[in-house]
Amino acid sequence: MIKKAIGIISITICAIFLTGCSAFAPKDPLPSWNEGAAKSNIIEFVSTVTNPSNPAYVLPAERIATFDNDGTLWSERPVYFQLLFAIDQVKSLAPQHPEWKTTQPFQAVLENDMQALAASGEHGLLELIMATHAGNTTEEFALIVKQWLATAKHPKFNRPYTELVYQPMLELLAYLRANKFKTFIVSGGGIEFMRPWVEQVYGIPPEQVIGSSIKTKFAMRDGKPVLVRLPEINFIDDKAGKPVGINQHIGRRPIAAFGNSDGDLQMLQWTVAGAGKRFSLLVHHTDEVREYAYDRDSHIGKLNKALDIARKKGWTVVDMKNDWKVIYSGQ
Amino acid sequence: MIKKAIGIISITICAIFLTGCSAFAPKDPLPSWNEGAAKSNIIEFVSTVTNPSNPAYVLPAERIATFDNDGTLWSERPVYFQLLFAIDQVKSLAPQHPEWKTTQPFQAVLENDMQALAASGEHGLLELIMATHAGNTTEEFALIVKQWLATAKHPKFNRPYTELVYQPMLELLAYLRANKFKTFIVSGGGIEFMRPWVEQVYGIPPEQVIGSSIKTKFAMRDGKPVLVRLPEINFIDDKAGKPVGINQHIGRRPIAAFGNSDGDLQMLQWTVAGAGKRFSLLVHHTDEVREYAYDRDSHIGKLNKALDIARKKGWTVVDMKNDWKVIYSGQ
Repeated sequence: MIKKAIGIISITICAIFLTGCSAFAPKDPLPSWNEGAAKSNIIEFVSTVTNPSNPAYVLPAERIATFDNDGTLWSERPVYFQLLFAIDQVKSLAPQHPEWKTTQPFQAVLENDMQALAASGEHGLLELIMATHAGNTTEEFALIVKQWLATAKHPKFNRPYTELVYQPMLELLAYLRANKFKTFIVSGGGIEFMRPWVEQVYGIPPEQVIGSSIKTKFAMRDGKPVLVRLPEINFIDDKAGKPVGINQHIGRRPIAAFGNSDGDLQMLQWTVAGAGKRFSLLVHHTDEVREYAYDRDSHIGKLNKALDIARKKGWTVVDMKNDWKVIYSGQ
Repeated sequence: MIKKAIGIISITICAIFLTGCSAFAPKDPLPSWNEGAAKSNIIEFVSTVTNPSNPAYVLPAERIATFDNDGTLWSERPVYFQLLFAIDQVKSLAPQHPEWKTTQPFQAVLENDMQALAASGEHGLLELIMATHAGNTTEEFALIVKQWLATAKHPKFNRPYTELVYQPMLELLAYLRANKFKTFIVSGGGIEFMRPWVEQVYGIPPEQVIGSSIKTKFAMRDGKPVLVRLPEINFIDDKAGKPVGINQHIGRRPIAAFGNSDGDLQMLQWTVAGAGKRFSLLVHHTDEVREYAYDRDSHIGKLNKALDIARKKGWTVVDMKNDWKVIYSGQ
């Protein structure tokens, strides 16, 4: 009883003086973000759409937020990590495929020609995936991805790839979910490449992952039903494909979207064109010391047209160097 | 204080005598189900996988349950309701398409030849949908569906189609969700035909609906981004397509699956082939008085091979006539 009374008196004193009461101050939901427009825009948006007395209030069921993955949630340099995974698979399978020595993009892989590989883009990546993984079942493929992630390390940072996820974005995902947002990945990368690890790393379950895919086929093997991965593109979840993938998978328009390149432009346009309050954000890679600096002329993660439109429309642009206290967790 | 003491004494008396304490008996989660094998199988399964001390316990995140729609959650006779919707659309658009008078399946629609229509199956249905709805945007199409459902009535029951959903299945959906299952629809019907109403009727949000689809294309109209529906099949979510659709959309194998026809066989096979405890159920249409009776020879909702396999494998088969106290809500 006495303790309770002291608590009430403390709160009253705080309310009166509004100072020196850190124990009662709301906890910063985005501690790795420096104070600035990006952080305050995010908090203003979330506070507004979750406030039932605000005209822009959004019901929890409609709080859909979509995130690009490569360059938005984790790094994408020197090349997409999925491409580095495919390279290792090509190298280990090369003895069985002598024709790869003179066929692109396999030749580039075997000659370690990163520039030629980067130029092949996400289509090239998917071609490598198809050539190296067709015939596997979905479950076998998931196991190969997990095994690779458990041992492979990034050439510059010498850390597992799953540690090269952006700490400020992990905080943003958690902040949105704490405010009853449903967070989805909408990536040009392979859906089956992401699903084995994104739940553990981002807290995003497999059913909230949208990505590029190859076709699969139901078959019986030794009396057991399996899904066999076929060497045929099913869907490219990039550029104008992103709104298509979102509609196909989610069936409602996001109210917030997060990307980092021209490949995310249509997703952001689709998101902000809906009725009511909307939020769109681009991560701008400006930190060549702690990560990489690139935008308009980059082969990977090119940010040119979307950057112009973002500035014209007043979308939030994160300056990684200045807006983020840390890049990766554990730094 | 006195009330609390009486409560404690009552509970103690109940615990001692284990009788005459209906106020404390657990509420029947499936009141529209008669006592019998189907009901007890469901409850035994749910109790087992949600009991943390049972070796067959399943974490909430992995409690995925998939439901066919036509004939499993709502009726599908005299023909799929989506076909009746398409018929009305064809009739209203017919003056602009004189060629439909001599082209199937349009001719059958205009001549009210239900048998010819039924024979065209779900592919025929999709052909009608494509012909009557291509060029619309996704949002325009959703509006057309809603408007039709608000006025159209079933030819036999003279009730809105959304009232012809099975009360016992609504209870089953609610029971599973109360036990932290995530419930999905996996239907041969059109994904965009279901999404406008299933959230309100079944409590299943659009992002948990998997179905057949036509392709869509991102486009700018009057400076606004839209998704235009194209006259081209994207995916047929039927038979061997159901496990493919489940994997594409959910990315993990269901632990329980519910269907009513041979079109659901592969979904059920895929579900029960996973590790751990699994559940599969077929709704058998045996009630020609309260609904319809059909199985092996039916054009729509044919249940032949799956019925044999269900009996051989010991899957649960619901006898609608004997297992369900009511068919529809409000009866």
